[in-house]
Amino acid sequence: MAPSLSIFFLFIITFCVTLTAAAAGHYSLQTFSPRPAYQSLIKHAKTRKPKLPFKTRYFPQTLDHFSFHPKSSKIFYQKYLINTQYWHKGSPIFVYTGNEGDIEWFAANTGFMLDIAPKFRALLLFIEHRFYGESMPFGKDSYQSAKTLGYLNSQQALADLAVLIRSLKQNLSSEASPVVVFGGSYGGLLAAWFRLKYPHIAIGALASSAPILQFDKIIPWSSFYDAVSLDFKDVSQNCYEVIKGSWAELVAISTRKQALAELSKAFRTCKSLHSTASVLEWLWTAFVYTAMVNYPTEANFLKPLPAYPVQQMCKIIDKSPSGETKLSRAFAAASLYYNYSQTENCFEVEYEVDPHGLHGWHWQTCTEMVMPMTCSNESMFPPSGFDYKRFAEQCRMKYGVLPRPHWITTEFGGERIEKVLKRFGSNIIFSNGMQDPWSRGGSSPC
Amino acid sequence: MAPSLSIFFLFIITFCVTLTAAAAGHYSLQTFSPRPAYQSLIKHAKTRKPKLPFKTRYFPQTLDHFSFHPKSSKIFYQKYLINTQYWHKGSPIFVYTGNEGDIEWFAANTGFMLDIAPKFRALLLFIEHRFYGESMPFGKDSYQSAKTLGYLNSQQALADLAVLIRSLKQNLSSEASPVVVFGGSYGGLLAAWFRLKYPHIAIGALASSAPILQFDKIIPWSSFYDAVSLDFKDVSQNCYEVIKGSWAELVAISTRKQALAELSKAFRTCKSLHSTASVLEWLWTAFVYTAMVNYPTEANFLKPLPAYPVQQMCKIIDKSPSGETKLSRAFAAASLYYNYSQTENCFEVEYEVDPHGLHGWHWQTCTEMVMPMTCSNESMFPPSGFDYKRFAEQCRMKYGVLPRPHWITTEFGGERIEKVLKRFGSNIIFSNGMQDPWSRGGSSPC
Repeated sequence: MAPSLSIFFLFIITFCVTLTAAAAGHYSLQTFSPRPAYQSLIKHAKTRKPKLPFKTRYFPQTLDHFSFHPKSSKIFYQKYLINTQYWHKGSPIFVYTGNEGDIEWFAANTGFMLDIAPKFRALLLFIEHRFYGESMPFGKDSYQSAKTLGYLNSQQALADLAVLIRSLKQNLSSEASPVVVFGGSYGGLLAAWFRLKYPHIAIGALASSAPILQFDKIIPWSSFYDAVSLDFKDVSQNCYEVIKGSWAELVAISTRKQALAELSKAFRTCKSLHSTASVLEWLWTAFVYTAMVNYPTEANFLKPLPAYPVQQMCKIIDKSPSGETKLSRAFAAASLYYNYSQTENCFEVEYEVDPHGLHGWHWQTCTEMVMPMTCSNESMFPPSGFDYKRFAEQCRMKYGVLPRPHWITTEFGGERIEKVLKRFGSNIIFSNGMQDPWSRGGSSPC
Repeated sequence: MAPSLSIFFLFIITFCVTLTAAAAGHYSLQTFSPRPAYQSLIKHAKTRKPKLPFKTRYFPQTLDHFSFHPKSSKIFYQKYLINTQYWHKGSPIFVYTGNEGDIEWFAANTGFMLDIAPKFRALLLFIEHRFYGESMPFGKDSYQSAKTLGYLNSQQALADLAVLIRSLKQNLSSEASPVVVFGGSYGGLLAAWFRLKYPHIAIGALASSAPILQFDKIIPWSSFYDAVSLDFKDVSQNCYEVIKGSWAELVAISTRKQALAELSKAFRTCKSLHSTASVLEWLWTAFVYTAMVNYPTEANFLKPLPAYPVQQMCKIIDKSPSGETKLSRAFAAASLYYNYSQTENCFEVEYEVDPHGLHGWHWQTCTEMVMPMTCSNESMFPPSGFDYKRFAEQCRMKYGVLPRPHWITTEFGGERIEKVLKRFGSNIIFSNGMQDPWSRGGSSPC
């Protein structure tokens, strides 16, 4: 059985930090985002595709639901997975609201829906999000530019779900079947938003680790990284302090002439490093993603990891010889994330692969999914602010468009959203593990 | 004081009838729509612009809220009218959700909001619908083709409201002010849908004469014209029968060689007729629109009309000399609609003017606002069906796009919408006069 849905999903972190000169010593690190993809281990995972209990189907979907240009009605084929094994006509339909990756990946890691399907005699649907996996509106050209990518956003994705579900129910002659939507992380947002915007189609939603309050200025921007830090601090104060102290050591090394060679050796990189910032990203990613998948059982969602991997990381740090530097302890801990299966002789610190097709998320953050994140002095990461102008300029440079930072809260609700949900008797369950960084900081109304 | 909001609004009728050969005698009338604009009298009304208690403002609005192409973020200026005369900071904001015409026209005819503003110390906003009045995203080129008109639809209009209201509340530093939306006819749909889709912005809606059930196959397609007919029948069985019988006489005349000359004379047209179908449209429009504005007081919304104009029309028919034909009686009754003010010496039966800027509605019916309407044997109009293929082909010919007949019920709810509204405690008042054709047939959940 797969781990509980409640803390199961990945959310690709969106942030834009600018280390202040004071915080970064004499070396000012550039704005960066953590790697959007994962290291070489995942490549092995990809070759071992699990046999899933679903049939694959493709639905002729409308390109643009919200405009009526001649080209808006272009059809593309949206992939979905279906399981009718337990279903009886009229019984519920459980829909997974696919998020920013291949739908099989999510289907393979969402045991909960399969677990409860027999009890509810439910039909199961896993619907792939447009512009991910095989659901490419313009085939190989889908990511060519903003002219094609312009159709990639959450409202179009929600409308896709509405159109597909309605059509399928008609085809099954089961219009009365209640529909419940399930999703995690960004997919959890979609599930909650779908219930909010399409109450005539879904009677309820299970929105897992859905950071519905992470937009605009609803919660403090430091919430997420404070929560990650607390996960480590709760396990061990020393662990937290070692990681917190490691960045200054990294910055100090970075000022040396032989920095790249030194770091390449210390971090056992497969290829010589081109940038010291890559090391920061590599470490950062390990700690953040491990906190996000800090499951109580051994699991393999982002990476193969042991049960309670944050505890395991801290054990490595706490038990390391007293003479070791903080940076080398941090490296040893991060190695758990990248090499728990002990198959790696070296690390592809700068080599990115994208086995789950997640690369569209960056576009989404540059348009509507603007989630400002900063690191406070209390976090174990270098203190940082959010420079919106710089972020927007980067988006403009890359895609030729500017973000709309207030759009999500306008479209789906901001400060008042919790009140609205309560008043409506919304039938939305926001589920989160108590250590989930997407919940702990208050980003999800648990 | 203006007449009650509940039966106050115009809805431009959307239908596509094909008279069967049997019903039309030997003469098969073509598919047609009633005139989208009104006769010469309105020209006078336009010159007498009332002084409205509002200031005019323009809001920089985003062209396309639901896509992120470079051109999607183009700004156009959306007009709105504002009255702060009664407002105290923190008090409610009443928003009129502008529909398919110039916003001043609606503001001049919506006394209800002004009447209750002092009691609630309310701020009043009348927000013009994109592509109507002065709110033209592409200036004079806005109606050039589907490439520009493509952005004219209800979802974009609702998002416009959300963005504008949110921005205005911020500028007024009155974020806590409760917002209630008001609208009639298509604007009533917008008000109800806005409350449904943006519950975090509007706490309630007064949706007047909003035919929320008129789409797809929710209610019988004959509901609307049956209701119009019943309005006349309830006043006088003879009146109903005279109108019902007049069409056959018109068809009979139409087969004659001198039909156009005969009808031009009989209908006192200012210019010679080019088509006998124009006469049918002219009569049809008079009866349908009079039923829609059958107010209990003298009023001047579509035309200057007496109190209870349906009763007045029937009085004309019932009191006409016994030797007169049904068609001439129908003409005399219709003349009340076109010439109650007794200023017309002749009628511009084929000459259309559009004083309120309503011409965008036809595009909307050809894209999303597909409301099939037919005439049953019980109606006073010639029996007719709805030929979707023919309708769609006409839209394709005119605009190069095809309608999406199931979109509105997918986006806003179909058969289940009433249940959803009840369950949610939606705070939506659907108000209708009991004789309102938009309510009587069950098209609005009164």
